[in-house]
Amino acid sequence: MAKRFRHVALVGKHQARGIRPVLEEIAEFVAGLGLEVSLERETALNTGITAFDALSNDELGRECDLAIVVGGDGTMLGFAREMARHGTPLVGINQGRLGFITDISIERFREALEPILAGTYEKEQRAMLEGAVWRDERIIFEGLALNDVVVSRGATASMVELRVDVGDEFVANLRADGVIVASPTGSTAYSLSAGGPILHPSIGGWVLVPIASHTLSNRPIVLPDLGEIRLEIVAGRDASVNFDMQSLASLLHGDRITVRRSKHKVCFLHPTGWSYYATLRRKLRWYEGVS
Amino acid sequence: MAKRFRHVALVGKHQARGIRPVLEEIAEFVAGLGLEVSLERETALNTGITAFDALSNDELGRECDLAIVVGGDGTMLGFAREMARHGTPLVGINQGRLGFITDISIERFREALEPILAGTYEKEQRAMLEGAVWRDERIIFEGLALNDVVVSRGATASMVELRVDVGDEFVANLRADGVIVASPTGSTAYSLSAGGPILHPSIGGWVLVPIASHTLSNRPIVLPDLGEIRLEIVAGRDASVNFDMQSLASLLHGDRITVRRSKHKVCFLHPTGWSYYATLRRKLRWYEGVS
Amino acid sequence: MAKRFRHVALVGKHQARGIRPVLEEIAEFVAGLGLEVSLERETALNTGITAFDALSNDELGRECDLAIVVGGDGTMLGFAREMARHGTPLVGINQGRLGFITDISIERFREALEPILAGTYEKEQRAMLEGAVWRDERIIFEGLALNDVVVSRGATASMVELRVDVGDEFVANLRADGVIVASPTGSTAYSLSAGGPILHPSIGGWVLVPIASHTLSNRPIVLPDLGEIRLEIVAGRDASVNFDMQSLASLLHGDRITVRRSKHKVCFLHPTGWSYYATLRRKLRWYEGVS
Amino acid sequence: MAKRFRHVALVGKHQARGIRPVLEEIAEFVAGLGLEVSLERETALNTGITAFDALSNDELGRECDLAIVVGGDGTMLGFAREMARHGTPLVGINQGRLGFITDISIERFREALEPILAGTYEKEQRAMLEGAVWRDERIIFEGLALNDVVVSRGATASMVELRVDVGDEFVANLRADGVIVASPTGSTAYSLSAGGPILHPSIGGWVLVPIASHTLSNRPIVLPDLGEIRLEIVAGRDASVNFDMQSLASLLHGDRITVRRSKHKVCFLHPTGWSYYATLRRKLRWYEGVS
Repeated sequence: MAKRFRHVALVGKHQARGIRPVLEEIAEFVAGLGLEVSLERETALNTGITAFDALSNDELGRECDLAIVVGGDGTMLGFAREMARHGTPLVGINQGRLGFITDISIERFREALEPILAGTYEKEQRAMLEGAVWRDERIIFEGLALNDVVVSRGATASMVELRVDVGDEFVANLRADGVIVASPTGSTAYSLSAGGPILHPSIGGWVLVPIASHTLSNRPIVLPDLGEIRLEIVAGRDASVNFDMQSLASLLHGDRITVRRSKHKVCFLHPTGWSYYATLRRKLRWYEGVS
Repeated sequence: MAKRFRHVALVGKHQARGIRPVLEEIAEFVAGLGLEVSLERETALNTGITAFDALSNDELGRECDLAIVVGGDGTMLGFAREMARHGTPLVGINQGRLGFITDISIERFREALEPILAGTYEKEQRAMLEGAVWRDERIIFEGLALNDVVVSRGATASMVELRVDVGDEFVANLRADGVIVASPTGSTAYSLSAGGPILHPSIGGWVLVPIASHTLSNRPIVLPDLGEIRLEIVAGRDASVNFDMQSLASLLHGDRITVRRSKHKVCFLHPTGWSYYATLRRKLRWYEGVS
Repeated sequence: MAKRFRHVALVGKHQARGIRPVLEEIAEFVAGLGLEVSLERETALNTGITAFDALSNDELGRECDLAIVVGGDGTMLGFAREMARHGTPLVGINQGRLGFITDISIERFREALEPILAGTYEKEQRAMLEGAVWRDERIIFEGLALNDVVVSRGATASMVELRVDVGDEFVANLRADGVIVASPTGSTAYSLSAGGPILHPSIGGWVLVPIASHTLSNRPIVLPDLGEIRLEIVAGRDASVNFDMQSLASLLHGDRITVRRSKHKVCFLHPTGWSYYATLRRKLRWYEGVS
Repeated sequence: MAKRFRHVALVGKHQARGIRPVLEEIAEFVAGLGLEVSLERETALNTGITAFDALSNDELGRECDLAIVVGGDGTMLGFAREMARHGTPLVGINQGRLGFITDISIERFREALEPILAGTYEKEQRAMLEGAVWRDERIIFEGLALNDVVVSRGATASMVELRVDVGDEFVANLRADGVIVASPTGSTAYSLSAGGPILHPSIGGWVLVPIASHTLSNRPIVLPDLGEIRLEIVAGRDASVNFDMQSLASLLHGDRITVRRSKHKVCFLHPTGWSYYATLRRKLRWYEGVS
């Protein structure tokens, strides 16, 4: 039987205008149902809400058995990475246009949250990427990504050249604006803009998408998520690597980025009746033709 | 330990010019190594080779423990489907430019075949699609595909409209020239031309690629190969469905095509050192830039 | 000074449900402003409207100085070709979702038509393609196209092979599902679905777009509209050629399709303030992001 | 009648290994035919060749009636911009793989150059882009481009947002990695990698290509080259603009880049029999299929 929750973490896109009353309303609603509520520390500080405990991400991860994220997909990406090693399931409430992974509208948060808090929901797990940057046999940067690991050329360089290996096999040398390694979750984000396919979340793979590849036949390729993908900077000034476009490292020639599946997964809870394909149809406007 | 073979089936693209001496040479080489050789019946009839037994596909499947196919990827596709339910492993020898799945050149067939016949090879399994066409609750056509199942508009229709479901979930209504459901093997064939990604053979999925979709956001989507994909003809005259572009059925409104993973797999044997990525690099000319 | 009109041709998508009262309303509105109104003969026959003269396309072209088309872009395409040699300007009224070239909604036809009929409008000319099919030095088919000339493979063929020449220069041999030669007007129709660019109507060129080209580097190419484009069928069963996807000829090996700029242009009239780019934004939903 | 030349400017990719003897050989060959030869100053300094006059770009432009460029397309781009206002025609000799605009191989430079120097050649003119960056009503950067003007996002920004206007019409707001405005010459360079079409050099237009556009329907658009294109930075950190990926300016919010047709054209001379389409076939490998 599905789980009834006890202690909810609440985090908000605290720089958003008018977020304070929204967070208070949600917190009071959850507390009113008899659950404990703790605020993420930055959210509490920035909104000035003091009626609830403020905890660090680490404390939230250890103590809470559910997290509610109020904001857009970007807010969710950042907080989901923080909760990943704790396994805390996440629910996303969106103040604006619904996202791919924040799919409850603020207008109807009560009817959506109540059954979830009572243990009735659709549970969905998403694989994460774990990346590291190696320089001279040392790791100089590490990170998790729910969407993607992206290597980009510098502004003054016409391209970056990358050597790609998978496991112990050489794949290709790419000359491009950059390359995206996207998870199924990330396949509907930047990767899609760069020409990648959509990957259903149950696919055990990543898609490697060259951005504006010099060689026209360097097409997106879906790789198994079992091995390690290695990207080595062969040429190109001022290249950099991004994790979910939220954390960044500068790269030198010879640096290698390794990407593999994290042992952690992100767990999203959705209202009953939620459908991945319905989300695609809504976000990509599949009902509506060009003419 | 790898298997040593005993009885080899030999099949050739018998309409190809000059195929007879090539087949004779290969047959004699294999027989000279002490293996039994049987010719596929059509190949024997069309080339006039009588020095070896001629068997039907069914007999070859039952009696042979290895099949050698001489021709291009198209010849291999057709024969691989025939051998699928017998599980007979296949080796491809190509008379012209090497293919994706026929990767031994006729010039060096001896050094490539000898170790394989002795049991030293790379073994690789490829998933197959099993499709059926339903009309009024009856199956009117069935087929296997190693590459793809393709629904196309008729020549006089500006498009076909298809309803796509996966398992018990509605995916989308597509208006397009057609749609391709491609296996990883087929992802480097027609699907690639239509804008699909490359799928590594180990990916447990198919790619569904709309051809010239009316709605620009109807992008290729990689679906798990566990469920059933259903394509229903909603509108459009003279639509048809192809299996590996080799067998065909005409479609009416309301017809449904179901596609799922076949319980059979195709088994290819390659010379030691064979690499999937090297094949991609060679076929897609990844070493060479546009300028 | 802009022209005041005298005699209006009225044509409707006569198979559309509920078109009769709409046409009557428009006809009476125009007649009420003191202009003569004639109905296109098929429209009159199929709707049963008898209160206005019914004329053939040829008579309409000779006698009317303006044509009002009620329907979608497809209806406009067909009638615009008929009016082309007469130079009759056209106004499009759309009953459903506005089109690229039928941009007045039925709800506000009065306020849109009145100034146009009085001579206040934006005038816009669009180039047309003139195509012919040659077999053994004889023309076996001819046609005009406002959108595109399209060569397609037959349903049982995996591709068509075409030799492309421009003027007296060889361009390329294409192996593809087909090829589109689109005018700027057609660049937002089928050509866009097949990967072509948008061409502003003032560009003096056509775009040649291979459909699902076998060779990935066979990208859309914008050619000058001064010379003649020749497409010769080299291989592929049951190929055919379409003009605006509305008239069709079957093709044999060796047949050549020639395409050049028609000496006729189509002339559209729009309400003052009309903007080509606004139409693109509306039709392609440029204001709205994916996420 | 075609022109016989008198005084030749010679410029080389002076950082290339082994360029000195190649330049000396060409210079002596041209001088041996009775023409005056002057070296571009940087080329002379870096190679140490002293047997010929060394002149500045400006002096070369004023005094020479032909320029020979030894290097790749990048070397030609840079020097062609320098010669543009003088109208000096250019010939390109390539030491490596032939380029799009450097199409004479070093191996056969004698037979290619001799007729050109004697006045027998194909002459081809290419339009150039003239760009400026405006900040608070002042121009802070100006440049010419033969290939393209490119606006790119900074490495730490997930995108740049641009407002696009053409003449006095608003076109669209783009959110993307950047945008390319490419000339026909540039349409086979970066623009092609980013999904743009090929534009024949005689097309009077530019192609505006969004790079990895957030909105999937923001497709490449071919715009007339008569008006001015304006790109305003609406959002996105550290954006920059490149001219031919060779000169660069950093951009702030509110900066506007204007692009219009330069009054100067670049004039290339080719050996008789040169064909634009043959260059495309060779560079894009149109003779060779994927499989």
